[in-house]
Amino acid sequence: MTHRPGPLHLNAFLMSTGHHEASWRLPESDPTYLSTNIAYLQRLAQTAERGKLDSIFFADGPAQSRDVGRRPAGTLEPTVVLAAIAAVTQRIGLIATASTTYNDPYNLARRFASLDHISGGRVGWNVVTTAFVEAARNFGLDEQPPHHERYERAAEFLEVSLKLWDSWEDDAEVGDKEAGVWGDSSRVHPIEHVGRYFSVAGALTTPRSPQAHPLLVQAGSSEDGKDLAARYAEAVFTAQQTLEDAQAFYTDLKRRAVEWGRDPATVLVLPGIVPVIGATEAEAREKEDELDRLITPEYARVQLAKTLRVDPDDLPLDRELPADLPSEDEIEGAKSRYTLIVNLARRERLTVRQLIGRLGGGRGHRTFSGTAVQVADAIQDWYDHGAADGFNIMPAVLPSGLEDFVDDVVPILVERGLFRSEYAGTTLREHYGLARPANPHTLARTEVAAR
Amino acid sequence: MTHRPGPLHLNAFLMSTGHHEASWRLPESDPTYLSTNIAYLQRLAQTAERGKLDSIFFADGPAQSRDVGRRPAGTLEPTVVLAAIAAVTQRIGLIATASTTYNDPYNLARRFASLDHISGGRVGWNVVTTAFVEAARNFGLDEQPPHHERYERAAEFLEVSLKLWDSWEDDAEVGDKEAGVWGDSSRVHPIEHVGRYFSVAGALTTPRSPQAHPLLVQAGSSEDGKDLAARYAEAVFTAQQTLEDAQAFYTDLKRRAVEWGRDPATVLVLPGIVPVIGATEAEAREKEDELDRLITPEYARVQLAKTLRVDPDDLPLDRELPADLPSEDEIEGAKSRYTLIVNLARRERLTVRQLIGRLGGGRGHRTFSGTAVQVADAIQDWYDHGAADGFNIMPAVLPSGLEDFVDDVVPILVERGLFRSEYAGTTLREHYGLARPANPHTLARTEVAAR
Repeated sequence: MTHRPGPLHLNAFLMSTGHHEASWRLPESDPTYLSTNIAYLQRLAQTAERGKLDSIFFADGPAQSRDVGRRPAGTLEPTVVLAAIAAVTQRIGLIATASTTYNDPYNLARRFASLDHISGGRVGWNVVTTAFVEAARNFGLDEQPPHHERYERAAEFLEVSLKLWDSWEDDAEVGDKEAGVWGDSSRVHPIEHVGRYFSVAGALTTPRSPQAHPLLVQAGSSEDGKDLAARYAEAVFTAQQTLEDAQAFYTDLKRRAVEWGRDPATVLVLPGIVPVIGATEAEAREKEDELDRLITPEYARVQLAKTLRVDPDDLPLDRELPADLPSEDEIEGAKSRYTLIVNLARRERLTVRQLIGRLGGGRGHRTFSGTAVQVADAIQDWYDHGAADGFNIMPAVLPSGLEDFVDDVVPILVERGLFRSEYAGTTLREHYGLARPANPHTLARTEVAAR
Repeated sequence: MTHRPGPLHLNAFLMSTGHHEASWRLPESDPTYLSTNIAYLQRLAQTAERGKLDSIFFADGPAQSRDVGRRPAGTLEPTVVLAAIAAVTQRIGLIATASTTYNDPYNLARRFASLDHISGGRVGWNVVTTAFVEAARNFGLDEQPPHHERYERAAEFLEVSLKLWDSWEDDAEVGDKEAGVWGDSSRVHPIEHVGRYFSVAGALTTPRSPQAHPLLVQAGSSEDGKDLAARYAEAVFTAQQTLEDAQAFYTDLKRRAVEWGRDPATVLVLPGIVPVIGATEAEAREKEDELDRLITPEYARVQLAKTLRVDPDDLPLDRELPADLPSEDEIEGAKSRYTLIVNLARRERLTVRQLIGRLGGGRGHRTFSGTAVQVADAIQDWYDHGAADGFNIMPAVLPSGLEDFVDDVVPILVERGLFRSEYAGTTLREHYGLARPANPHTLARTEVAAR
């Protein structure tokens, strides 16, 4: 099956020294400096913009849940990071993760609207429900709310946010100096939302922003997650290991979007790929092997045991996973990631040590080492075969892995007619080929007037 | 009494087209553009930095409470605005208002720590409890919490924030590539806070920031507000109309700081001043009169009635305030502002129309029109007479009022030896002459080791 829905989209997923957990141990990285250095993050964004990528993206979670011994911790809050990046870039889209479980919709919707103004319409929001108990404990809870409840709250959070972003009509700002009337109060609408989780009077403090709504991104692949994505998301990040799994996910998500009454072309699916690029295939392999050798297995084993809800002692490094693991139903955290890891280990009969190597590279995302041509082929293969509208590029090592991708892989994709050589638009929605949402108040008024 | 505690400090309080409510009606302003235009706000910050001012400052409240007809509304959330300004400035301090009533300490403390990293140690937080019911209604409440309860919550919010900012010791980042140990987990401390309003496990996600704690600013002048300021604040913004009132406030606040065991020199008092600067005194007066003529009294009367808790019909424009107004005890909103307005009207026997003119200029802050020398004299007078450690400069019109101040008034203050001609330090704390806080965990460890 050849299936090419539109031009390929590329997002750069940025993370301190890179996605491989041992990347900070390479000579190129300055690990005590990079995790909090805005100049470094700004340079990464400028590299991605040089490659005309659609967007950059930061993950986030409101808790220090990792053992700081293992790898660079100490992440900055991404909305303020993106504001500082917006000031030194012109076109690239800027996507921040933020939690619907541990925020208030008025504050967060307002911050994204503000970022959209600041960036001239380049902001996206990766909507997450946050799947670890350490976060709950920073917000007055002993345990995290159940998985399904988190997703119910997320849906209402999005409804409130959409209402707030539409609470000012586009023509609410009048600025009539002569009459002394700054704004038209009939064009600013309190939302008066009363729901199960939230009561929000509105309106927003912020006039309608360049994109009206930030691009909505979703990355949960559980049943609840896919449903939320199908209903609201415009871009979906997903971890898929095989072409067949990726095709199944792609088809399933588009079908669900249709069930929600949406045009499936407005829900773009971007599987993650962790490329390790070398001048030759052997050089790429050697880079990857060097990284894997630098993993400290003891830290990784503790993390894997936590994800699988077992004791670390039940995971001897040179044996396969135990047979009696919990079912996905029993997991209140990141359900789909859990299943992906267990399936990967079972399918390939990996020992714990081998599984740690595979996860250390991409935390469940597809890793791929090869030449620039081979990476471009791997991308085109999934794109041509109905598995992806684009890719979430997760360089194993930063900054070099992003530079390699931009300088060596992107030109091949452009040459093949798969990717842009210049930005056509100025907003993130334009990069992704998505329309600016109409304002429901304006529409209703226009319809009444037309009768 | 001549009292000069140290070099004068100057903060520029920035607000859309200026602090005079009719400023947007002047030819220089582009009111439908400026309220959300980051390039404009960045230029204002660069102008203040050109004048070597200590800091800029944005007010904030999480609700659209004003009639949008009256004057520019539509404010952006200030932490993201300051991040975008940090990227295009080098030295000037950046102070954002944020509410302790309508935020979670983990999220907000983290955002300020992130901003402090992003700006290289230039961030301050104006701690407010938010005094209007429209905000409560955006966060699931019908009424705002009582005044005293808001301040109790603010104190606990600050305690949690201070613990979080100290949760990483300065040497927690190790980056030992050889041993494969990134961080020293014995130097990262969960805070395990359990209190009346908050339970927060910690630690922060963010390593200790350049200033350790953002500069803490407070602007409430009620009894509760002054107490919070005396206990925690390092800079205090205040509205004072007369030298005598300002001296009394200054003396009282320093005394309260001493009662909390603090060195009064580490609590800097900055009264507001709304300067209107002309080449001659007559020109300055004419500018001010032109602004006052442009006030739409009807909007202002409704706002005044709301502040005074009376019906607008009870405030005929050409009569004095009614005799039977509520006492400050009955006000759950901005108590000290209420008293200041009533006292101003009674003291000077102002009609409602005259009072509106006075408030339209500076919302209760001291307005002053004159030449650059006269403005410098007015500043020096309060500074020399124990009423101020510095000033909160609130230009009636922006950008021209700030440019006039920087180009014409600052050189006079420098010439008189009252103000810096170059920045000596790089952080906001250094500008204000305040030390970087020591880390209590490190102190405790060092003391044990020294025994």
